[in-house]
This record gives sequence, C-alpha cells and structure tokens, in this order.
Amino acid sequence: MNNTHLPRHLLTLDGLPFDALDALLTRAQAFADGHYDRRALDGIAVCTLFFEPSTRTRMSFTLAAQRLGADVLNFDASTSSTRKGETALDTLKNLEAMGVRGFVIRHHEDGAVAALSQHVELGTALVNAGDGRSAHPTQGLLDMLTLRQAKGHDFSKLKVAIVGDVKHSRVARSDLQALRTLGTGEIRVCGPASLLPNDGTLDGCVVSHDLDAALDGVDAAMMLRLQRERMEEGLVASLDDYHREFGLTAQRLTRAAPDAVVMHPGPINRGVEITDEVADGPQSLILRQVSNGVAVRMAVLEALLRG
Amino acid sequence: MNNTHLPRHLLTLDGLPFDALDALLTRAQAFADGHYDRRALDGIAVCTLFFEPSTRTRMSFTLAAQRLGADVLNFDASTSSTRKGETALDTLKNLEAMGVRGFVIRHHEDGAVAALSQHVELGTALVNAGDGRSAHPTQGLLDMLTLRQAKGHDFSKLKVAIVGDVKHSRVARSDLQALRTLGTGEIRVCGPASLLPNDGTLDGCVVSHDLDAALDGVDAAMMLRLQRERMEEGLVASLDDYHREFGLTAQRLTRAAPDAVVMHPGPINRGVEITDEVADGPQSLILRQVSNGVAVRMAVLEALLRG
Amino acid sequence: MNNTHLPRHLLTLDGLPFDALDALLTRAQAFADGHYDRRALDGIAVCTLFFEPSTRTRMSFTLAAQRLGADVLNFDASTSSTRKGETALDTLKNLEAMGVRGFVIRHHEDGAVAALSQHVELGTALVNAGDGRSAHPTQGLLDMLTLRQAKGHDFSKLKVAIVGDVKHSRVARSDLQALRTLGTGEIRVCGPASLLPNDGTLDGCVVSHDLDAALDGVDAAMMLRLQRERMEEGLVASLDDYHREFGLTAQRLTRAAPDAVVMHPGPINRGVEITDEVADGPQSLILRQVSNGVAVRMAVLEALLRG
Repeated sequence: MNNTHLPRHLLTLDGLPFDALDALLTRAQAFADGHYDRRALDGIAVCTLFFEPSTRTRMSFTLAAQRLGADVLNFDASTSSTRKGETALDTLKNLEAMGVRGFVIRHHEDGAVAALSQHVELGTALVNAGDGRSAHPTQGLLDMLTLRQAKGHDFSKLKVAIVGDVKHSRVARSDLQALRTLGTGEIRVCGPASLLPNDGTLDGCVVSHDLDAALDGVDAAMMLRLQRERMEEGLVASLDDYHREFGLTAQRLTRAAPDAVVMHPGPINRGVEITDEVADGPQSLILRQVSNGVAVRMAVLEALLRG
Repeated sequence: MNNTHLPRHLLTLDGLPFDALDALLTRAQAFADGHYDRRALDGIAVCTLFFEPSTRTRMSFTLAAQRLGADVLNFDASTSSTRKGETALDTLKNLEAMGVRGFVIRHHEDGAVAALSQHVELGTALVNAGDGRSAHPTQGLLDMLTLRQAKGHDFSKLKVAIVGDVKHSRVARSDLQALRTLGTGEIRVCGPASLLPNDGTLDGCVVSHDLDAALDGVDAAMMLRLQRERMEEGLVASLDDYHREFGLTAQRLTRAAPDAVVMHPGPINRGVEITDEVADGPQSLILRQVSNGVAVRMAVLEALLRG
Repeated sequence: MNNTHLPRHLLTLDGLPFDALDALLTRAQAFADGHYDRRALDGIAVCTLFFEPSTRTRMSFTLAAQRLGADVLNFDASTSSTRKGETALDTLKNLEAMGVRGFVIRHHEDGAVAALSQHVELGTALVNAGDGRSAHPTQGLLDMLTLRQAKGHDFSKLKVAIVGDVKHSRVARSDLQALRTLGTGEIRVCGPASLLPNDGTLDGCVVSHDLDAALDGVDAAMMLRLQRERMEEGLVASLDDYHREFGLTAQRLTRAAPDAVVMHPGPINRGVEITDEVADGPQSLILRQVSNGVAVRMAVLEALLRG
C-alpha cells in the first residue's frame, strides 16, 4: 500500500485523512480474504507493552504480527521491572535498544502513547492499543471494516447508533472519529446522562436518552461495554436498571431497520448491555468484528513497519 | 497418516478404535525418531487455553506445535478476560474468530472440553489436555508409546499395575482405556479403598489394596501422583502412612518382573508415591515418558490440524 | 567461531581464558553489526527458566534466540509446578527430556546454575543469567563489548571505576573478572564500606570511599544499581544520603577524563545512583549496553548450541 498518507505511529483516528483510513481498510480486507505474505515482517521484532491488562487485544495483535512473520514479544508491565520503579519510557527505550521496532501499547492514562512517541528513534513505530478514555484506533478501524463489509463503502445514507457508556469509552471516541471521516449520514448517541460526555465529543451527533428512539430505523447499533466500576461510582444504579433502559433485546431490535446489524467491542456482559439472543443472533457481527480485528492489525503493522 | 479413523477432536481415549490409537502411536514414534517436517503446520495458529494451571503440559504442547512450525499462543485463563466475567465459551469463540484453529484446553470440570467442542466451527480442533477427573488422552497415549518402546507392540501377555489415587485421576482413566484398547493381558489397580472408584471404572481390573501383591510379577508399575489435598479431605491419613503402604521402593520393586519398568506422569512427590532411588533408577522410564509426550502431541496436532 | 576455547556451559567469567572471551566479543560485534543467519538455530529449543523475575534480561535473551531462529519458551518458575513442590532440577530435567537444548537460568542462590549443570546430558547447554551475588556473565560480556567499542581493544591504559553496591552485585563480580582477563590498566572500586566486599573480590583494585577521588581521570565509570532492600537492611541510611555521597552527577563527572563514558546495567534508579542529566547525556552508553546485550547473547547461544 501507499504509506505516504500514514503517520509514523498510529495514535488516534482523529485527524487521519480519508485516504489513509481507506487505504488501511482496503489492505485489511485483502488480509481478511487470506492474501498475505508470511514473510512480510520477517526479522522484525514487535512487542506488546500493556500497562493495563487486556488478553484479548494482546492476542489479536500477536496473531496479526505472527501471521506476517514478525518475532513477537509480550511485555506484561504489571509483572516486570516497572515494579522496580522503572518508568514506562525507560522500559520502552530499553526494548527499543534491544532492537524491537514495533510497539503495541496499552496504557491507562490519556495521551500516554502519544507522549511516549515523542521519544523514540526514527524507524520505531508505536500503535496505540488503547489509552485511557482517549482512543483505541484499531478498534475503530475494525468496526469500520465490519460496517463496510455489511453495508458497502458509501456511509452517506447510513444511520448508526452508539449506545452506552460513551463518556468513559475510547472505543466510542475512535468510532465517532472514523464514522465522521467516512461521511456517515447520521450518528446517534444514546445512554444515561451520567455516561454521556459534554465536552464536544458528541458534536454533530443526535443525542438521546431513549433507546427505542435511538434505534428507530438505524442500520447499525454499536453497543458499548458497561464497566462494573460505574455502579461503584454511582453513575449507574444497578445492572438490572441499566439493562431495562439501555440493554439491547430482540424486542427492541425490531425498531431498527430489518437488515440492521449489531456490534459490540467485547468482552460482552451478557444480559446487561445485550441479551444472549441478540449477541448470538443473525444480526450480530460481534465475532466478525473479532476476525476483522486481526486483519486490521496486520494492515497497521505492515504499513508502519514494512520497507 | 490416515486420518479417517480419528475424530475431529481428541476429547478422550474412551471409544477411540484400535486403528486410530495405533496410527497415532506409530506416527508419534516417527516423531520421536526425529522424522518431521518443520513446516507441517506453517501458518496454523494453536492456542493453549488453560483454566487450570499446568506449566509442564503447556510447555510440552507448545514445543510440539513449534516443532511443526505452528504459531503458538498461550492464553492463561487465570489472568485474563475471564476475570472480567467472560465465559470459557466466549473466550474460545473469540480466539476462534481471530483465526486460531487448534485449541489445547485444560479445565477443572469434567466434560468441559467436550461441551466446548459442541460450539466450534468445522475446521477447528480441540485437544483435551485434562478435564476434571475424566480424561487426559495425550497422557494415555504417551504412556502407551512408552510401554510399546519397552515391551513391544503385543500387550496381550503384559501385566500392568496402576497404583495410587485412581479415583481422582484423569491419567488413570485414560491409561485404563488405552490399555484395554491395546488388549493388555492383565490390568491391576492398587490403592487405598478411599482412593479407588467404585463406579465401573475398574471393571475387568484386578483390584487390590496390597501393593506387594499388586506388584508381584508385573511388567510395568504405573504410579500416580498423590495430590496433597487428599490429606485435607481426610482420604489419606498422612504422606508417611501413604508412602509406607503404597510408596514404590527399590525393595518392593524386586517383587515385579526383573525387567519391569516404572512410570509416573509427574510431577513426582519424591518420597511419597515413589522413592528417589526408584524414580532415578535404571527401571524408571519417567523422563522417557516426558520425551514421548512431545512426540505424541505432535502426532495429535498433525492429525487434527493438517490438510 | 572456534568453540574449542569455550566450556559447555557459560556459568561464570571466572577462569574463562582471554581467547574465549575475545572470540565471543568478536562474534558479538559481528551480530551487533547486523551480520547473522536467521536460521542458525532453526529447530533448536531454548528455554528461559527464571527462579527470580527479570523481564529485561529474559527479553534480551528471547530476542537473541529468536533472531537466530530458535524456538523460545519462557518458563516462569514462580507460577509453575515448582509451586507443586517440584525441585529446580526436576523442572530442568523434564524440560530437557522434552527436547529443550539451551537453558537460560536465573536463580537467587549462589552457585545454583553450576549445580544444575552437573546433572544435564551432553548436548544440553546452560547459560547463567544471574545467580545470587556470584555471576552474571553475559552482563560482563556486554559491558566489555561496550567498552571495546568506545575505547578500543587495548585495555592496558584504561582506568575504570566501578561504583556502588559491589558487595551484593553479581554484575560487579563478572565485570571485575572480565576487566582483569582483558588486562585493564587500573580498576578502581568505590562505595560505602557497608557495600564493599572484603573477601578477596577486590584484590588488585584501588578501593576508595570517596567518589570524587575514584572518578579522577577515569576513562569509564560503571555505576551499579542500588537495591532498595539495602536501606531496610540498614546498610544505607537513605537514598538521599547515598546520592549525595555516591551518586554520579554532571558536576562530578567533570573529574573524569573528558571522553570518559558512563555505564549502568539498569534498571536505573534515576536520582539515586545517577542523575537524569548523566544517564541521558552524551557520555552515557547505557542504551548501547542494552543493544550490545542482545548481540552478546546471540554469540553465547550460537557458541554453545550450534553444530
């Protein structure tokens, strides 16, 4: 692919031009179709560096890197020299000095990956695998690939609803950015007032606190995971309450377009944000999202690390 | 090898026909002799998915998969999204969606792997690496390969004693099934009454609570590991008592045939079920069992995943 | 390279002849320059077996082994069957029986790796990745490679200062041995009396408790990490005190030769044994040491495992 559009690192989808996004999705589709070179990243070392645990995302990146022939290292920052007081930057610089060229980084602080990217050598590439509430760009990309496969490349007629805890969700932020870049017709956001941001994130979106209204006629319902911490923080009364108001049931899904698709970044809280019937039903693309995640991560790693 | 006899998954040795067992053992012997293709599973992803820790078994499967060129992932279910409430099935389905084709699964519940196998796609293969007290089929296979190497292919004249906590042992169950399928002449089972099952598992076996009698003239003594929990449960008075009654010593081993072999699935409780002198002595095949474990697991992975 | 000088295992630099040391460093330099065969160790399994955690060293060995095409296993002895009471030797013998040929072992006890080496088969090689306070030979080698790159091969005119907790440092012991073998002109050792050994380790060294004096005109300052346990043990009053007396600051560094280099085995306690300004300054070779670590470990693994 033509890398000229891509930045050196993938930190966010915010500001990523349409051409770069489109090129990544096109390349990811080729990977999803099984066209790839097992030696593309031969001899290149990629390290997953997670300051916040996430087996699922780490596995997806690991599989992506392995398929392209990279050597993959997993650095679990919770059982490592960070315990001995080493800073994240020192850890990164040490691994870079060892010859690691690609870093897949998850961090609990907003902007942590961007901050680290200021200090690496030319030739080292960072992928943000989720930082704080800010961004999770490969999740945004895989969601767009999944939507394209289901609904075609023209998003201008699409109505998409994002439902749940948008306020604390880096997934939602990356999805919103990508949906805008791809020219989505109508973006609806729905959730309890306590879980919606009021900082400009939702500019241009149709905001609602009524799931039935938000689902009316939509082509895609993108459900968000509800972290159980929200109850402890008093932002949600109970899981039952949440489910009654914002859980997607088969009954409610009938309000959407007949061929509407349902998405969720996982892991699912079954019976909270979504029922089993919907999660495992014919309109669910949840496992397809997971598959596309590997393809998208292959595209990102190849674009940043090859050649 | 001819795969037609093999099931899609290796869940148990119960019901596995002689031809399938024989074909796996023959193939494993070729691997043990060093004949294998480093690219046999190139591009195929295998994941070890352990809901109960076992470094040793995980390592053995990992080495087996690596030697055949597979990409290997380790999923430690105790430090992962299962913590976030994800079910074992969701974890499995997610990894399958990421493109993992072979799963090596250990689970503390009887039948857990068989239950999971009901929900996977065609083309996905599960290997039971131990479930509850039910089955540990690759251990059964490696024990049979070890016996064949020592005693030849005709088991009809062999007298084999299985000694110890048969009741809680998936190893013993898989060994018993395989020994029967291979037509073993006489199968003796020996242990304290509290540690022997009375559910039909021992049908056809010569059951005894006297180790001297059980060892008399045997060709092979297969010792089982004594879990320390058995004391807390009151099933065994003390390790010393157990050793005095059911521990294999050099003195006792003289009761067996002069060329009798000693086996143990490991890890050994030295001085409990077996003395150092016997475990490290000339009749011990314990490390040979470990070597054969890799060969057997290569045969299983190849049979289930290749072509 | 010519292996005839090398022992079967790399346990210590003590007694390693000049020719063997020189050959390893020459080979490591070739690896550092990027000349290596990705298939050199194809089909050979290497296991990192750490009874004391060290992500950094484990990663470095893993990268070294991967670059030469070995299959790498990580055995974390703190979450494994060692918990079930298995001895280190049984763990090692089991992995050896599985076909692992190279072991990279870290252990908290002095002499533990040497003891294990008495029990392995011909064809199995052990690398001591740090045992107790005794030895960390690959750290010694990488420090020598780094010094050679900066100062040339003739060490006879060099003045080198080792600063800090020499008493508890396996790094210092391996450095001292290598510096002597390479004929270093003057070796100075500096630290608080409570942290210097009085057992012959420092024979032939210029010992001082005054950092300014120790740095005067030196060509290299090798700073040691201060373990925080030393305070709890009462060997150091406080980190501030330690820094005031033995911390390397830019001001103090002006006492050294103008082209003096600064080294540290990492992880750094910034502001304790070294200031940020020095650690990240133009005279610091700290990240170069890390890079050289991979090259040196490639040379060691190749020498012990190839052919």
